[in-house]
Amino acid sequence: MSTEPSPNPKPRVVIVGAGFGGLAVAKALGGEPVQVTVLDRENHHLFQPLLYQVATAGLSPANIAQPVRSILRKHENIEVLMADVTGFDLEKKLVLAGERSIPFDYLVVATGARHSYFGHPEWEAFAPGLKTLEDAVEIRRRLLLAFEKAEVATDPVERERLLTFVIVGAGPTGVEMAGAISEIARETMLQDFRHIDPREAQVILLDAAARVLPVFDESLSKRAEEQLKSLNVTVRLGVSVQGINEEGVSTPDGFIHARTVIWAAGNAASPLVKALPGTFDRAGRIQISETLNLPEAPNIYVLGDTALCLGKDNKPLPGVSPVAMQQGACAAKNILAQMEGRPLSKFAYWDRGSMATIGRNRAVADVHFAKFSGWLAWLAWVFVHLIFLMSFRNRISVFLIWVWAYFTRAAGARLITGKKT
Amino acid sequence: MSTEPSPNPKPRVVIVGAGFGGLAVAKALGGEPVQVTVLDRENHHLFQPLLYQVATAGLSPANIAQPVRSILRKHENIEVLMADVTGFDLEKKLVLAGERSIPFDYLVVATGARHSYFGHPEWEAFAPGLKTLEDAVEIRRRLLLAFEKAEVATDPVERERLLTFVIVGAGPTGVEMAGAISEIARETMLQDFRHIDPREAQVILLDAAARVLPVFDESLSKRAEEQLKSLNVTVRLGVSVQGINEEGVSTPDGFIHARTVIWAAGNAASPLVKALPGTFDRAGRIQISETLNLPEAPNIYVLGDTALCLGKDNKPLPGVSPVAMQQGACAAKNILAQMEGRPLSKFAYWDRGSMATIGRNRAVADVHFAKFSGWLAWLAWVFVHLIFLMSFRNRISVFLIWVWAYFTRAAGARLITGKKT
Repeated sequence: MSTEPSPNPKPRVVIVGAGFGGLAVAKALGGEPVQVTVLDRENHHLFQPLLYQVATAGLSPANIAQPVRSILRKHENIEVLMADVTGFDLEKKLVLAGERSIPFDYLVVATGARHSYFGHPEWEAFAPGLKTLEDAVEIRRRLLLAFEKAEVATDPVERERLLTFVIVGAGPTGVEMAGAISEIARETMLQDFRHIDPREAQVILLDAAARVLPVFDESLSKRAEEQLKSLNVTVRLGVSVQGINEEGVSTPDGFIHARTVIWAAGNAASPLVKALPGTFDRAGRIQISETLNLPEAPNIYVLGDTALCLGKDNKPLPGVSPVAMQQGACAAKNILAQMEGRPLSKFAYWDRGSMATIGRNRAVADVHFAKFSGWLAWLAWVFVHLIFLMSFRNRISVFLIWVWAYFTRAAGARLITGKKT
Repeated sequence: MSTEPSPNPKPRVVIVGAGFGGLAVAKALGGEPVQVTVLDRENHHLFQPLLYQVATAGLSPANIAQPVRSILRKHENIEVLMADVTGFDLEKKLVLAGERSIPFDYLVVATGARHSYFGHPEWEAFAPGLKTLEDAVEIRRRLLLAFEKAEVATDPVERERLLTFVIVGAGPTGVEMAGAISEIARETMLQDFRHIDPREAQVILLDAAARVLPVFDESLSKRAEEQLKSLNVTVRLGVSVQGINEEGVSTPDGFIHARTVIWAAGNAASPLVKALPGTFDRAGRIQISETLNLPEAPNIYVLGDTALCLGKDNKPLPGVSPVAMQQGACAAKNILAQMEGRPLSKFAYWDRGSMATIGRNRAVADVHFAKFSGWLAWLAWVFVHLIFLMSFRNRISVFLIWVWAYFTRAAGARLITGKKT
């Protein structure tokens, strides 16, 4: 290592967050004349669309996560640091991570979102949300433990409460969780208990909206609701949550006694973004320009769930991985353009459609030229998720686990780990 | 459910612990005229011989664990309860688990062992041992985090301490851990860092004994030591540990600075067994009769690592799974004999040999008629461990993960989870 500064130091790009957006920027800058540093508080990139399968004991954490530094190992101009970013010194162009400070010429903030409890953070203890591997393992623990406790419960009222599962929020995550919990109870665990019949489990999906999957076409919402009902999920729409405690959920229609409540409603942008200059929406997202950087700080790019980015219809783009990935590619291109004084490209989102799975052979898909549901949509969902999963090995593993589960109805990772109560 | 007692109630067998011993008893009693209850504080049976591969990021927890109730689901006379057994009421013939009490006619205690710190429980915080999935994930976290911290360390002395790994105890677990850590540093992570060379990692294997794998033939100990050295493991024998703190390990030869210390020395029987009547050895094991029950309580059987059982040479049998499994089959037979007033069988251990792996293509095996090491021993080790792994699915998964790792030298589960410091 030389102690003298090199004569023409390469511009330094610091990327905070190794989710879909951050990784897309890094990959696009691999081999370019920039020095890239990727910071993440985890050592792994997480394929969040399959996180619900870890929470419902179908997949293991390692099946959907990959070390960030192995993903980027082949790009010699990229370094990866595991660090918890605590703030920025924008005047000195520094990213602050505890005692460390990392200088940047260009900054990319792609730190995602956490669940938001609509101003009721006290609900989190009783209704965990699903964003990280730790969240998923905690939800898996609660789900499986509820059946174990029901098996030994002597009071029938308590047994019923233990076998009642409430999912708040009927977006894709809520729908996927509800379907998966119902399947594991009705199929996987069917012969495993002596004192309870796991099919007695009640899975209740609550939403204040008038239909499930509200971002989908109304016909597909209807199909999804039918498919949920065919799995014995109770769908209760137009019901807002007024409170959550260890006994269950209170709603205007009355109190639902349930020992397990899962939160799948409401996101808020990562609070780190508040340290940047700009205007914010109700979900804490910062408004970005059409070129994905901040109007007041053009060398700072914000992507994905952290950014408020308006689509062609002037409505905010949804918090899904294709948005973040396409933004990442565009941001990388614009950083290189800025370096060379070229004009920046405007971001245009190419929406290839959306899909959500409800269970085995059950899904809905909208690819613009066609809307379909059932077996075909499910197969399309399986295919798309395998293609986009990071690393060939994970694709093979998950494929084999799914094939196995399809034929045996077994669950791949029925483990209760962590505290035992 | 009838409220009247049935005219000829079946004898109740309660098995505490669903390890190799407890499961062997349960399986042998499946379909017999007894009512069996299996209690375990975990929901899963764990294949402990491969636990070190979870600790070294090769396998996922779910690859080596299986829900106890799915293993035993087909036996209608067996129920499984997840419960933490707290004691016994031997007069009333009850197993106590918190507020619950489970009546028994025959009791089997097979609760295994925990690591023992030779009267220094304060060492545990700095040198975790390896018995449960939680232990393994914690050790994995410490190992991987040490490399991450070394990558960002600016002080070369601190970097060296972060890259020094001490394993205390050169039995099979210690040898396997040392080899695996050295391999992951020298092969798997080779290209992943920019500021450190993972090959600089120092792996030090300490033992107070004069050779590694002391239960093996001396020639194999020598071969194992050579194989460890070929993986750059520093083997320090005849060195006793005098203290362990967050800075490292003190020995009569001086202080070894190391940020990661792993404990693979010394076991103590599960403390639950102290509530039973009998005599105990230094490791807390209870002395059992030749028929595997307690001399003072013939309806109570104790198996596996919890029991002191003398072999033909009057030496205690080792704490390995074949002993526990064979004892389990014998105990089940003797319980059925007791019920019918038949004479009990004496336990005879059929020792089929032992093997330990050091790394890829490196192992030692002793099958009495032959002692061998290297590639052939390694292949035998792989084969035997796949055969005995519970569940066909896990066998296939682990086989594929191993084949993949063999050719790519990748690690299957390089995840840092849990707390991040």
